[in-house]
Formats: sequence, C-alpha cells, structure tokens
Amino acid sequence: MTDHSRRNILVAASALAAGMAATGARAAAPMSTSKASFPPVVHHVFFWLKNPDSKEDLAKLLAGLRTLAGVDTVRGIHIGVPADTEQRGVVDGSYSASEILFFDDVAGQNAYQVHPIHKQFVAECEHLWQRVVVYDVKAVAP
Amino acid sequence: MTDHSRRNILVAASALAAGMAATGARAAAPMSTSKASFPPVVHHVFFWLKNPDSKEDLAKLLAGLRTLAGVDTVRGIHIGVPADTEQRGVVDGSYSASEILFFDDVAGQNAYQVHPIHKQFVAECEHLWQRVVVYDVKAVAP
Repeated sequence: MTDHSRRNILVAASALAAGMAATGARAAAPMSTSKASFPPVVHHVFFWLKNPDSKEDLAKLLAGLRTLAGVDTVRGIHIGVPADTEQRGVVDGSYSASEILFFDDVAGQNAYQVHPIHKQFVAECEHLWQRVVVYDVKAVAP
Repeated sequence: MTDHSRRNILVAASALAAGMAATGARAAAPMSTSKASFPPVVHHVFFWLKNPDSKEDLAKLLAGLRTLAGVDTVRGIHIGVPADTEQRGVVDGSYSASEILFFDDVAGQNAYQVHPIHKQFVAECEHLWQRVVVYDVKAVAP
C-alpha cells in the first residue's frame, strides 16, 4: 500500500460521505477528487485548565469531550492534547486540550450548541477550565 | 440514509485508513468503533491577512494553501474561512483563512515543514499575511 493509494482511500471515503450529504435538503458539502477532504464545517475549541498540571482534571475534561460524539449532528470528532512538535514562535502549545467537531453545515453546529449532551458537558466540566477559545471554520470550494 | 448510518460510514472509512496506517512501521493511529475519527496529528493554522478586505489577496492565499495537499505525508486537508456562526465572546472569527492538515504522526508533520511544496507556499504567500497562529494537536486514545 503506497502513501498515494492510502490517501486516495480517504478521498474516496470523504467523497462518499459528501455525496450522501448532498442527497439531503442542504447540499453544501464541497468535494474534491484530487485530495482528501472532510465535512465542511469545523468547530475547533481549545481549553486551558485551571489546574494545568492536574492529570485528573485533564482526564475528566477528556472524558467529557468524548460524550460529544453522541450528538447526532456531529459528523466527526478529534480530541487531543498538544503535539510534540517543534515549538516555534508561531506555535501556541499552551492549551490543555483540543476538541474538533465536524458538521455538514452551520445548522448542525447551531443544533449542537443547544443539544442536551453538549449542555450536560458544559455543566459538568466548566469548573475545570479557566479559558476557552473557539474557531468556527467553513470550507471553501476546492 | 439516516444520520446515524451516515456517521457510521465515516467511522468505517476512518477505521479502514487507520488500519492501513497500522500496517506501517509506526502503528500510531488511535481507533474507535463507536465514533468517527481521523488521522491522529492535526496541524491547524490561522492566517490574518495584511489586507483583510482584499478578496484578491484571500484568493491568492487560498490558492497557495491548496497546493499543500500535494505533500505526501499530508493525509487530509481542510481549507476554510470563518463560518457564519453566532459570534459569542469565546469565538474568534477575526482570522482571514484557516488550514487544517492531518498527519499519521509527528514525523509526518516534521517532514511537511521542510517539504519543497510547503517552502514554495511560504515564499510565494508570506507577504500576504500579517499574523499566523499554529496549533499542533495529537489525538488521545478514545
């Protein structure tokens, strides 16, 4: 299996998902046949813990973040911590945890904001963090 | 096609890709059978243009970002602009463009940094932006 063919699998899978999304009422998913792509709307949240050295608090936060996969409009989820890359000046590696959610459209993200699973996560975990920064991104056509 | 089954396609595709990655020397891709997941290492870059109202400069930057899909260690790419979500206090929608790259591991991200395609992008586009912020994330096991 070459790197190229492995990448093509991701392209094909993503195109399949985008094609299915296009059968819905909102056919907004941009597609590409030449590179891997993902559901178009990204909601990326960074958390800074009140106790950044507490492994227990981090574990609680990560456990809470995992529950967000249960929201029906969430098409994909990536939960992580700072990667061990070179800390150049432009790299912000000061956060404690990262949550990336993918949606088919902005309506899906809006529905997520008021979903009971999201509200429960906030209620149970918000005492853990001191700061949150959110970036919402919509894909441009390839 | 229900929302649930549509999500399962993404899970299956991702698990397939992760499984193939695991046949390589570095079997690092975390997997989950219960929710969608993606290649583990995320490199998310936000750009603020010198001329944020210039559609021409934005188009040049986006065109440059699209070339990054040609780097062999890039497993997935998402290029976008601020989504039209509610601008709550925690949401930073001030950036001009967003680039998310997915890698199998930190080594793949390191190789990308010195790849000729990436260097060419920086050389041709860096005059367009006034500020860049980078977040590198590594997925935690589900």
